[in-house]
Amino acid sequence: MKCLKVLGVVVGVAALLGLGIILGHFVIPKGADPLAPSVSASQDLDLEILETVVGQLDASRIRENLRELSREPHLASSPRDEALVQLLLQRWRDPESGLDSAGTSTYEVLLSFPSQEQPNRVAIVAPTGDILFSCRQSEENLTGEQAGPDVVPPYAAYAPSGTPQGLLVYANWGTEEDFKELQTQGIQLNGTIALTRYGGVGRGAKAVNAAKYQVAGVLVYTDPADINDGHSLPNETFPHSWRLPPSGVERGSYYEYFGDPLTPYLPANPSSFRLDPATASGFPPIPTQPIGFEDAKVLLCNLQGPSAPAAWQGSLGCDYKLGPGFQPGGAFASSQVNLSVHNTLELRNSSNVLGIIRGAVEPDRYVLYGNHRDSWVHGAVDPSSGTAVLLEVSRVLGTLLKKGTWRPRRSIVFASWGAEEFGLIGSTEFTEEFFSKLQERTVAYINVDISVFANASLRVQGTPPVQSVVFSAAKQIPAPGPSRLSIYDNWIRYSNYSSPVYGLVPRLGSLGAGSDYAPFIHFLGISSMDIAYTYDKSKTSARIYPTYHTAFDTFGYVDKFVDPGFSSHRAVAQTAGSVLLRLSDSLFLPLNVSDYSETLRSFLKSAQQDLGALLEQHSISLGPLVTAVEKFEEAAIALDQNISALQKATPNPLQVRMLNDQLMLLERTFLNPRAFPEERYYSHVLWAPRTSSVVTFPGLANACSRAMNTGLGSAAWAEVQRQLSIVVAALEGAAATLRPVDDL
Amino acid sequence: MKCLKVLGVVVGVAALLGLGIILGHFVIPKGADPLAPSVSASQDLDLEILETVVGQLDASRIRENLRELSREPHLASSPRDEALVQLLLQRWRDPESGLDSAGTSTYEVLLSFPSQEQPNRVAIVAPTGDILFSCRQSEENLTGEQAGPDVVPPYAAYAPSGTPQGLLVYANWGTEEDFKELQTQGIQLNGTIALTRYGGVGRGAKAVNAAKYQVAGVLVYTDPADINDGHSLPNETFPHSWRLPPSGVERGSYYEYFGDPLTPYLPANPSSFRLDPATASGFPPIPTQPIGFEDAKVLLCNLQGPSAPAAWQGSLGCDYKLGPGFQPGGAFASSQVNLSVHNTLELRNSSNVLGIIRGAVEPDRYVLYGNHRDSWVHGAVDPSSGTAVLLEVSRVLGTLLKKGTWRPRRSIVFASWGAEEFGLIGSTEFTEEFFSKLQERTVAYINVDISVFANASLRVQGTPPVQSVVFSAAKQIPAPGPSRLSIYDNWIRYSNYSSPVYGLVPRLGSLGAGSDYAPFIHFLGISSMDIAYTYDKSKTSARIYPTYHTAFDTFGYVDKFVDPGFSSHRAVAQTAGSVLLRLSDSLFLPLNVSDYSETLRSFLKSAQQDLGALLEQHSISLGPLVTAVEKFEEAAIALDQNISALQKATPNPLQVRMLNDQLMLLERTFLNPRAFPEERYYSHVLWAPRTSSVVTFPGLANACSRAMNTGLGSAAWAEVQRQLSIVVAALEGAAATLRPVDDL
Repeated sequence: MKCLKVLGVVVGVAALLGLGIILGHFVIPKGADPLAPSVSASQDLDLEILETVVGQLDASRIRENLRELSREPHLASSPRDEALVQLLLQRWRDPESGLDSAGTSTYEVLLSFPSQEQPNRVAIVAPTGDILFSCRQSEENLTGEQAGPDVVPPYAAYAPSGTPQGLLVYANWGTEEDFKELQTQGIQLNGTIALTRYGGVGRGAKAVNAAKYQVAGVLVYTDPADINDGHSLPNETFPHSWRLPPSGVERGSYYEYFGDPLTPYLPANPSSFRLDPATASGFPPIPTQPIGFEDAKVLLCNLQGPSAPAAWQGSLGCDYKLGPGFQPGGAFASSQVNLSVHNTLELRNSSNVLGIIRGAVEPDRYVLYGNHRDSWVHGAVDPSSGTAVLLEVSRVLGTLLKKGTWRPRRSIVFASWGAEEFGLIGSTEFTEEFFSKLQERTVAYINVDISVFANASLRVQGTPPVQSVVFSAAKQIPAPGPSRLSIYDNWIRYSNYSSPVYGLVPRLGSLGAGSDYAPFIHFLGISSMDIAYTYDKSKTSARIYPTYHTAFDTFGYVDKFVDPGFSSHRAVAQTAGSVLLRLSDSLFLPLNVSDYSETLRSFLKSAQQDLGALLEQHSISLGPLVTAVEKFEEAAIALDQNISALQKATPNPLQVRMLNDQLMLLERTFLNPRAFPEERYYSHVLWAPRTSSVVTFPGLANACSRAMNTGLGSAAWAEVQRQLSIVVAALEGAAATLRPVDDL
Repeated sequence: MKCLKVLGVVVGVAALLGLGIILGHFVIPKGADPLAPSVSASQDLDLEILETVVGQLDASRIRENLRELSREPHLASSPRDEALVQLLLQRWRDPESGLDSAGTSTYEVLLSFPSQEQPNRVAIVAPTGDILFSCRQSEENLTGEQAGPDVVPPYAAYAPSGTPQGLLVYANWGTEEDFKELQTQGIQLNGTIALTRYGGVGRGAKAVNAAKYQVAGVLVYTDPADINDGHSLPNETFPHSWRLPPSGVERGSYYEYFGDPLTPYLPANPSSFRLDPATASGFPPIPTQPIGFEDAKVLLCNLQGPSAPAAWQGSLGCDYKLGPGFQPGGAFASSQVNLSVHNTLELRNSSNVLGIIRGAVEPDRYVLYGNHRDSWVHGAVDPSSGTAVLLEVSRVLGTLLKKGTWRPRRSIVFASWGAEEFGLIGSTEFTEEFFSKLQERTVAYINVDISVFANASLRVQGTPPVQSVVFSAAKQIPAPGPSRLSIYDNWIRYSNYSSPVYGLVPRLGSLGAGSDYAPFIHFLGISSMDIAYTYDKSKTSARIYPTYHTAFDTFGYVDKFVDPGFSSHRAVAQTAGSVLLRLSDSLFLPLNVSDYSETLRSFLKSAQQDLGALLEQHSISLGPLVTAVEKFEEAAIALDQNISALQKATPNPLQVRMLNDQLMLLERTFLNPRAFPEERYYSHVLWAPRTSSVVTFPGLANACSRAMNTGLGSAAWAEVQRQLSIVVAALEGAAATLRPVDDL
């Protein structure tokens, strides 16, 4: 009996001890212990923190940020641009709401400015030499903000100096086809000044195309048809509406590439090798100057010659003629246009500002969130609407950080880029300087440049892996306005398509090179996105918001017309903030690489439908491409299954890391720095520039188009085959990285 | 009392439970649990396993492997080469000693073979057309192994077909300087046949240089001075010694690049784009044929003309004259040499064999260990001595694996490459096919091609990060022979230098492009090494082991002369096996990246001493390079301290992984695919080919040398500045990856 009792006690003791051991071992979270206090390797997105962040983003603070940021013009490298560098540093070093650290990196870059002593001039000159008419040299001072020494006069950055004079012709957009059309119509182009309108082709391309036809100088204006839905009267335009006033001129960079023009592929440190500016490529070959439609009307409505084609007509209230020269009966009969450009190239210091929140668990994984800081004039919309949002997102996160409430799993890097307007210079130099580090470690790049074009709907451009995280964020945030819809449900009303995988979903746009995401996606292969609120395309056909790059893009313009109440700004802040947090904090990276399958399938389908027969004629088979796409799809599906299984189990930290590495690095596998040697920086075989209208793999599309349009014959078709093999190799290589890691 | 008792029981229960919880939480190893059974995230190198592996590597098994591997000639893509693919698969799939999986990947590659119908021929032809002398068309059958249909006759692979005939000249090594010297001496080269000796310059370069002087054909022979320490008599040579017999001819690839010639940068899959062989570059421009010194003597000792310079003389027992043509009084007076080459280019299937051991903890980290399989004839030394070792290492590891005794932390990939002799083709195609995957995940590449050149000492070529792991391995293995020294202590006796950091250490050679490591280091930036046992350079001046690429490189040759007893083979197996296991199993990767500092410092010193004054004359400052090297050094020191601190603490699995990623990827940061666009595959800014004699950064050295030697003036000096900036950017980028990961 006693024995039994003792035995019972012993058994009990053992059982309790065993239970304790089991509890201690299994119930106390596993990953937690080996790491620093309060840090767990299994740290996942905290939905409460997410809700807090989204809830704390404040429209009125964004408004105040914008007021301050756009108070003065802040052209790249100007004193006010430098002052804003200090403002950013101060915010990011704030003891209450700052980040872990903040600093600047400064590059010496080639910028282009108009001469202050010799203003650029466009004039109509009579045969006598008398000046019959001069275009405005600055915009009309409508709100008291369009005058002053810091308002840079309208100019075409990087256009060469020169004073060509000749008969005026009208050349529509200035595309190659446009000049060909003029030639076909028998218009003498040699020595003329070509008036072109914005649109159709990049700024720099207009002068490049013109020069091929011996045109001597180029003018560029914005037609009211393209920006104001045809309206052009002073009382219909700003400050009476958001429309572009008659004197408004779009400034811009006419440089054809991006990055500092003198240091391609090298960071523009003071000691870096620099090209000789005289031999550097990508600058417009002939003098070029932008003008307002008020002045363009005087020039265009007095032209002689045949009427321009219907598609070339605009809203200046006259029949657009082609020229050359002015009507014989008119005030400018026999007169020429004289263009005097006195731009200078200058090496200037331009800074990026970087602010960092150190990751608690994986500090070597970076989520980047950036925007440029420099503007053409006050830049309230472009770029300060984005920077105002950036500062609010960083304030809310910084406050949680400083309070000790939160630290992200991965590192977050905020960036304010310099000299974007001149050609994405600050961001490009950054990617050149930290190429290896960024390529190894960056999870994604979020760009919010112009955060609000208008009030209607979210608009996101990005590569397929970011679609799902953007959708997740957009579904949980209410859209501004009375609709009570989510941002996602509102978005789908404005822009949607029927996905073969998901059914009707909002349409994610693809990334060109319009803002600082370009070097990240094209040069480094980092999954990237650009987030904004935009207009209802059924209500306006404006190319972009009307005061873009003019002196009318002011705080008052935003406050009164673009986003009164700043609710769209807040919506963008909430979306970008939510995406940022999901990327930085989720245990499993919310990058859905299998969404690339849909893109590949669609590119393949286009190739088959639009190029298949042609390729067959030249004995080029799309079979290997079909196989490669299938391999990618299969590997992506298997990976998705692997993720699901792992999420249901209790994965160890390394299993999660290995899987996340596959997700993070998938975008990198599409890079081939040798695929398009003539396209500076562009290495992504899926998103390089496509000149063909066939929406397929760009190398294949472009090579086909060249082979069809040139007489190069078999060499050109060999290049088609080579480009096809490059894509096939990239897809097969990508699929190989998605397969189980121990399967070679 | 009862209450107290109950209380006591409750307290006891609680205490026991608590004790259990504490035990369960703290005593059961932390990292172990979240992973699969018997796998711990903190799994480190097990010294007992290491000892077991090193101890089980067996000389007699290596000997038996070699006997089987070299039993028949196994030229790339031949039936015997295919049979060896099956042998490897069978070994690696063996249920008792195989790996987790094994498979092949096959490429369709361009090889070059002599015609069987029209054998290549070298003859002396009298003015009458009579053939006065013909060179041997095959080697003398000394051991019964030099005849038969599978012994490929001596030829220069990729040399074009053709039947040039002309006067003979002697052109030493066939370097550019050699032909210049002939020209200076007034020797008419136009239309001649140039006899050259192996050495001084690559095989293909001889024909390239000759063609620039209108030479019509090239002969190449091995001078006894260069291979046999002057000995040339039949009774002094194989089979009486290890020396090259008079009829022996070195075969080889005369292709100037590496990889499949028709698919640069693309895997040679059947559907891949292929260059037109007629326009592909890198082939010798004129017919070329190698001959034995027995025949070379007849040609060379009958030449007329001035005596060749002293440095051009060899050991054929006559005064070497320059020609052109034969002595007027001799048997060949007025005769010419006729060279008939009938090589054909053929697309052939060539396979790699891959065998994998899955890593237990980090299966996505690969340690690669490979050698080629194809030989010119029996290839006992080259490459079967390496494959014999490879098979023994994989057998020992496979046996432990199959027994369940061991599984590596990281994955191990064994590789048997195809078609190396034609230009590293199998390995290069592999790196092209799996570019992204390998670049992301490969820890290091170990190459053991010829494992034993001779019996004296270890010889390792590699990049600096592998030095420490090779030294660690070499210190713990006894050297073969009676010395009782370690391999390390024996090595230091034969090849050493005084390191500023470590004092006297063995000298690690640098990696050229002599074997399959080339695509791994130059194209992918993977830390690589080549391990072998070699001869005592104080006892022989032989270029390489004497029967290299001849039909005399047989099992008997190895067994009798190269490594009787196979103890050097075992020493190489032990060294390579130990290095492999240390790389696959160590918790912290044994890659000492700070050893790069010594290389950079030494390159910098050479640049300062040998180029500094010259650069200063052209206003090019080495200051930025000094700063960059200093930054690298500082970052490397700080990283080393970080590693030490982490090793003393209890790092969590992710901290170890993050650090290891920095170590693994350092080599990658030196890659710049745009640095040397004219050098196919070469992207490593520290190890690209250097034509200048200044041992410094190759881009800088080469650009300086070109600027000095050409009249290009400022453009050439701009290129020097550009190359300097490329190196500076690479070093700064490398340093950035070594700094703390949250420091941008």
